[in-house]
Amino acid sequence: METTAVPDRTATLRRLMALLPPGRVLDGAAQLAAYGSDGLTAFEARPLAVVVPETQDEAIAAVRFCHAEKLPFVARGSGTSLSGGSTPCAQGIVITLNRLNRILRLDPAERVAVVEPGVINLAVTAAAQPYGLHYAPDPSSQSVCTIGGNVAFNAGGAHCLKYGMTSNHVLGVKAVLATGEVVTWGGPSRENIGPDWTGLFVGNEGLFGIALEVTLQLLPRAEVFHTVLAGYRTLEEAGDAVAAVVASGLLPGAIEIMDALALEAASAAVHAEYPPGCAAVLIVELEGPREVVAADRLRLDAILAASQPVEVRPARDAAERLAIWKGRKSAFSAVGRLSPDFIVQDGVVPRRRLGEALRKISAWSKEMNVRCANVFHAGDGNLHPLILYDGREAGALERAEALAGRILRLCVEMGGSITGEHGVGLEKRDYLPDMFSPEEVACLKRLRAAFDPFEIANPGKMFPGPGAPALTQHGLHPLEKAGVIARE
Amino acid sequence: METTAVPDRTATLRRLMALLPPGRVLDGAAQLAAYGSDGLTAFEARPLAVVVPETQDEAIAAVRFCHAEKLPFVARGSGTSLSGGSTPCAQGIVITLNRLNRILRLDPAERVAVVEPGVINLAVTAAAQPYGLHYAPDPSSQSVCTIGGNVAFNAGGAHCLKYGMTSNHVLGVKAVLATGEVVTWGGPSRENIGPDWTGLFVGNEGLFGIALEVTLQLLPRAEVFHTVLAGYRTLEEAGDAVAAVVASGLLPGAIEIMDALALEAASAAVHAEYPPGCAAVLIVELEGPREVVAADRLRLDAILAASQPVEVRPARDAAERLAIWKGRKSAFSAVGRLSPDFIVQDGVVPRRRLGEALRKISAWSKEMNVRCANVFHAGDGNLHPLILYDGREAGALERAEALAGRILRLCVEMGGSITGEHGVGLEKRDYLPDMFSPEEVACLKRLRAAFDPFEIANPGKMFPGPGAPALTQHGLHPLEKAGVIARE
Repeated sequence: METTAVPDRTATLRRLMALLPPGRVLDGAAQLAAYGSDGLTAFEARPLAVVVPETQDEAIAAVRFCHAEKLPFVARGSGTSLSGGSTPCAQGIVITLNRLNRILRLDPAERVAVVEPGVINLAVTAAAQPYGLHYAPDPSSQSVCTIGGNVAFNAGGAHCLKYGMTSNHVLGVKAVLATGEVVTWGGPSRENIGPDWTGLFVGNEGLFGIALEVTLQLLPRAEVFHTVLAGYRTLEEAGDAVAAVVASGLLPGAIEIMDALALEAASAAVHAEYPPGCAAVLIVELEGPREVVAADRLRLDAILAASQPVEVRPARDAAERLAIWKGRKSAFSAVGRLSPDFIVQDGVVPRRRLGEALRKISAWSKEMNVRCANVFHAGDGNLHPLILYDGREAGALERAEALAGRILRLCVEMGGSITGEHGVGLEKRDYLPDMFSPEEVACLKRLRAAFDPFEIANPGKMFPGPGAPALTQHGLHPLEKAGVIARE
Repeated sequence: METTAVPDRTATLRRLMALLPPGRVLDGAAQLAAYGSDGLTAFEARPLAVVVPETQDEAIAAVRFCHAEKLPFVARGSGTSLSGGSTPCAQGIVITLNRLNRILRLDPAERVAVVEPGVINLAVTAAAQPYGLHYAPDPSSQSVCTIGGNVAFNAGGAHCLKYGMTSNHVLGVKAVLATGEVVTWGGPSRENIGPDWTGLFVGNEGLFGIALEVTLQLLPRAEVFHTVLAGYRTLEEAGDAVAAVVASGLLPGAIEIMDALALEAASAAVHAEYPPGCAAVLIVELEGPREVVAADRLRLDAILAASQPVEVRPARDAAERLAIWKGRKSAFSAVGRLSPDFIVQDGVVPRRRLGEALRKISAWSKEMNVRCANVFHAGDGNLHPLILYDGREAGALERAEALAGRILRLCVEMGGSITGEHGVGLEKRDYLPDMFSPEEVACLKRLRAAFDPFEIANPGKMFPGPGAPALTQHGLHPLEKAGVIARE
């Protein structure tokens, strides 16, 4: 009996390669390393192989192979997941979908696009633009992230305040389930039969299968935009201004906040200029029919004037509007200039408790000596603390994670959520029981088993399990055990 | 061994009664008869008992009892289902939820209401009205139907063209599953974790469990309405006018059509007056901010003027608007004056093929000598043929069902759906395989098993099975076999 795990894997690989045209299966060390991690860069694993299907049938064949061999697989688009959602399984298969990138249909009359999963988010809007239409969900990574990933993680974005998440814009999905079955749910019509099967697939975090075709709703582009940037002396004042805008009944397209550290990073990265002496900047964008925006603008002006800003700068033209958004959307990556490493956190608090949450985060940041930048979707209470650390420094990651954990616990205590739009993934799976009761988790597991009885599709994500590589300090953190930090 | 089924049922009933306070379990013959059928009146069954819980805990106890005893149960609100969705199971339990009718919370600032399942649809809007808010989904039965039933069947309504179905307005659900487990999914925040668990529950047709608390989104009431009634010489011309409105890019709140037979019924019932000499009436309602409606109105006027109407009547005030809607919403029941019995059918065609579908229905109606009134949500292609028959006449029901079946098959062939908003229920369960592949149905059954492993919650609905009481003629209809009618 000479067989060991190594020859088995070689044989598996040989069978997989025999199944697909030449060049579709990558197994070189450098190639595998390139797929070793995603946007949650602190963590990586080495897959057995990477499959690069060029057709839907090849993707289906790869999934059926994994099902037959009970081999774990992880679907991947551009690998921008910030929750480790597309981190590979060690010795599993990565199925990368970037070459399934065709826009199969774009129907301006029906206002729908049918796209493959590898289509870039912004490419949908680019294709729809000649018809005065756009695809509304706009994650900050929209110039690189794919629709398949957006669907898997129910991606959000700045304008989700007005338009909702990805799930509000996906009308239908054709998918290969983890069982190898191919199903089609929904379609251009908004009339469903029975439960919202399409909505069940959106946000599945890769645990149910792989989307092969996605039917997206396109919306008419707003007639006019009115974008205002307002600077404040303190983060709390900016937070209070958000509360005032929300309470007024106005429904802006977006309400965003960047704090001092985020402003510093964005200034350095894209030469954005912000009002001097400001500890926070608020961005409010009105959009809609000309007459409505004109009327709403007067109300917004009055609300902002009463909020004691240092300065209010309305964008005078499209170029100035784009500059405001460029600064905002580059903030995540720009923070990389301030620190060798950082954790992008993603939690939700009831928006009326925004100021209270920001004060606590700021106090903890000082107390724990961990720098934290805040760039976030203020309008819907979706916080994005960027926690800076230097991975080369002993204990720095642990301290950063400890702060991240405190923030997440705060979100749950306040009646919010451990994730707004990045998903649970690898990063927050041990927090799932904070949000769901044992009965609820049991039911979710039974639902997952209906799609994936062998747990081969993105295993180790979403549900708590052993060996969680990130934010493992749920429960008593080592620094807490050692008395270095204390819980609230 | 003297035991038979009868003593068993008596013992079951005794145990159930012992579990609940006095008066909660009804088993008198007259009481049971009152719950024997729903809006699909042609079919009935006699339940073992009717449970009338007065608290959520009593409802939970009843479900747990059914689970423990593997006893079928059907949840019921006002029993307005048109697809037989709340028809009882013979010798099963009916759990009627009309006494769980409290509005638990209404938060105008967050624009949400949390209600129990027995709350009447229109009562939510009535409670929200003082704050300038309303609950958007408006089924024709909104003055009597309950939110629990709306959730179970993902109810629509005239204004779903603009605002979407019930699933677009349910933010969270607390439910007791068929297993007896109590789960809470979603809530006031729009940020979900993972898949849309709430959306999965909405439209479950009673197969997963019973909603105990529903969090509803409330929307600001439109500032102004502009409602137009236009009469046409033919149904096709009205259909073409719909296509022109849709193609223009206008997004009215509602676009409805009533044909000659429906107009006759509504005139007789509520003394509505329609333009003489019209074979069809189109209702278009614009709604929104004053300035937008004013601008859209000019465009609508031009489109309707070009559509060769016999007459166009804009509502001049709120009373005239309400009169238009009263006529439209009473049409279903008004048709009862024209015929002792009728089947309300519910199917969807792509809206660009509306004229074609209507022409075929009209031709079949003549050919088969079955009268058919058409009242429908034209804007989203949701047909509601009302097929008239006299149940006392031999073969009349069969002929009516044959026409209904042809219409449903037409919807599927055209790329539409066998139900827009009434659900599959008992009526159309044998049509499910026309919409879903065997792989899809297998997956749906596995999902159902995750909620209800014993298949005790509303069994016999949605999935095909033996003894379907309605539209059984799927496949070759007896009249087709006999050569009396022929398929296309």
